[in-house]
Amino acid sequence: MNEERKSGRLGGGVGLTLLPLLVATLLPSCSTPSTMPRTSAYALVLHGGAGSVSRANLPPAREAAVRLVLAAAVRAGESILETNGPAFEAVTAVVRLLEDSPWFNAGHGAVLNREGFCELDAAIMDGATRRAGAVAAARRIKNPILAARLVMERTPHVLLVGAGADAFAERQGLPLVEPGYFVTEPRREQLHELLERERSKPRADGRPPGGEDGIGFGTVGAVALDRQGNLAAATSTGGMVGKLPGRVGDSPLIGAGTWADNTTCAVSGTGQGEFFMRAALAHELAARLRHRQLALATAAPQVVQQELAARGGAGGLIAVDRFGNIALPFNTTGMYRAFVRAGAAPHVAIYPGDPGK
Amino acid sequence: MNEERKSGRLGGGVGLTLLPLLVATLLPSCSTPSTMPRTSAYALVLHGGAGSVSRANLPPAREAAVRLVLAAAVRAGESILETNGPAFEAVTAVVRLLEDSPWFNAGHGAVLNREGFCELDAAIMDGATRRAGAVAAARRIKNPILAARLVMERTPHVLLVGAGADAFAERQGLPLVEPGYFVTEPRREQLHELLERERSKPRADGRPPGGEDGIGFGTVGAVALDRQGNLAAATSTGGMVGKLPGRVGDSPLIGAGTWADNTTCAVSGTGQGEFFMRAALAHELAARLRHRQLALATAAPQVVQQELAARGGAGGLIAVDRFGNIALPFNTTGMYRAFVRAGAAPHVAIYPGDPGK
Repeated sequence: MNEERKSGRLGGGVGLTLLPLLVATLLPSCSTPSTMPRTSAYALVLHGGAGSVSRANLPPAREAAVRLVLAAAVRAGESILETNGPAFEAVTAVVRLLEDSPWFNAGHGAVLNREGFCELDAAIMDGATRRAGAVAAARRIKNPILAARLVMERTPHVLLVGAGADAFAERQGLPLVEPGYFVTEPRREQLHELLERERSKPRADGRPPGGEDGIGFGTVGAVALDRQGNLAAATSTGGMVGKLPGRVGDSPLIGAGTWADNTTCAVSGTGQGEFFMRAALAHELAARLRHRQLALATAAPQVVQQELAARGGAGGLIAVDRFGNIALPFNTTGMYRAFVRAGAAPHVAIYPGDPGK
Repeated sequence: MNEERKSGRLGGGVGLTLLPLLVATLLPSCSTPSTMPRTSAYALVLHGGAGSVSRANLPPAREAAVRLVLAAAVRAGESILETNGPAFEAVTAVVRLLEDSPWFNAGHGAVLNREGFCELDAAIMDGATRRAGAVAAARRIKNPILAARLVMERTPHVLLVGAGADAFAERQGLPLVEPGYFVTEPRREQLHELLERERSKPRADGRPPGGEDGIGFGTVGAVALDRQGNLAAATSTGGMVGKLPGRVGDSPLIGAGTWADNTTCAVSGTGQGEFFMRAALAHELAARLRHRQLALATAAPQVVQQELAARGGAGGLIAVDRFGNIALPFNTTGMYRAFVRAGAAPHVAIYPGDPGK
């Protein structure tokens, strides 16, 4: 579907040889691969969630606001990478910024569970060491991605959940907030409408609630390759609207929604988390690179198609491999996304084939 | 290291062709593979945890008691499989029985977290549908494996944690207990000794606490292949002694400590969970079967060696593939384990090369 082309140009300031940079975007009905000449030794990709977003249900003012935040986030990450900073720092900065924005389903602006609370999940993984940290079902941590990082850096554990995660963050001196901090009016309405719909027509198909309107998704994530050749991935989310209290999705689970390994790739997923979990999707992508020697441009759309779409799941992922190739496949009508590399303007997009700006 | 041999004998009552049954056991310094003639169309393997157990630190009376429970558990699972019952039911029955025994780190008898509470994790996965259910950091569910199963069967979710998991189990009518039900005197002493050791000599190596004495491990799990060719896996644990409240290990995470997929294998892990999580170990084993066409006897010891031991982790796993081959590799000094197939007496073992009984 997408061809991997290699550029002979060498990147600035690194001893690596070829770093082909490639974008693979899997679209529901059409495909618009764009192959960019390699101009740098680093790469950063972020997403703000995949879902059934369309020009019809995304008001222009909101679209403009979302694009501004995506552009700011990608610049925040790039400013670290271009000054030889680590991928790990770049993905932290990107996700933290998106958590603070009300437009995404992470941190402030997260979706509500059935009882009207935000329960937040986040994970980060360092591809150089394969160390990882995560929190899940946290209710009071202002920036869950910072807590995930401290779990990795200051405990022998990988995942802390619930009140234990909140208490850990507090002991570490991270800002805690009242539950109301996360809640926005659109999210309150979204939950109300979902519960009303369920009352009038209960779902019998066993599929996760929510996710069928323009603001159903919105998980945020970032993956990066730095000039030292290190990969990192980070993901943060409020999960699915109307979820049961205590429900944990794929985002904070290493190998499901988040993965980074210098020998293969860094991955962050977005979509119906249960499908990602039952496929170990992020790790499945890495496994196809590692064990079948597939190119990222081949393997990334493949796992979205074979392991997600073919099983009834909706969503997408972003990935960067150790060569700097990037991929952003999704099987929904849109995915908030952006990417950048040195010497080129950041690319921000929402719809399939979006020319960006 | 281990050779896979195929027997030409057909199993009773199934249309499958060859079902070679093989045991691969990876030992720290020696290897004693045993290849058994195929005598049945089903296979069941269980573990009661891998750790630094030795004849010196396991009193004979306790060893006898443990062997009795392992034998009872394997018989409970076999009674389902031999009457054409599903693998999914067999692994549920095995794990439930081991949760009720005080000798293992799951359910009654689980290890304590730093604050003296048992927080329980469990997962189950159905290889036929790749559906899964799990609970984590539950404090009041008598049998976490039953709650994990109901998460799969009655919710659109895969994982519920903390108070949300307890509340879900209560709504489903599962028996709930007071926190004291899980706590045994040896576990109380174990925590006390750990905290005393830490006070006198804090750990600076970043490794998980606990796990260095004979009762440090004890996670339970089961994998099975039934006569319909379906695979299933289940795992249940109290995690690591002295863990931070809210810490979740690999056991309840699909792809880390638990995996089942009819096209590859069913896997249940035991050991230092953080290492399993950072390797997506159970899914890594399945990926080597799927993408490299490796035999289970090759891939199972390989992942324990390359992905666990080589990275400083201790533990083991049990696995059964779609052909009925089984593997029980571990890199610790012992692993409580048992397996059975029709027409042969159950095999119960603890130490490397254990002749069983």
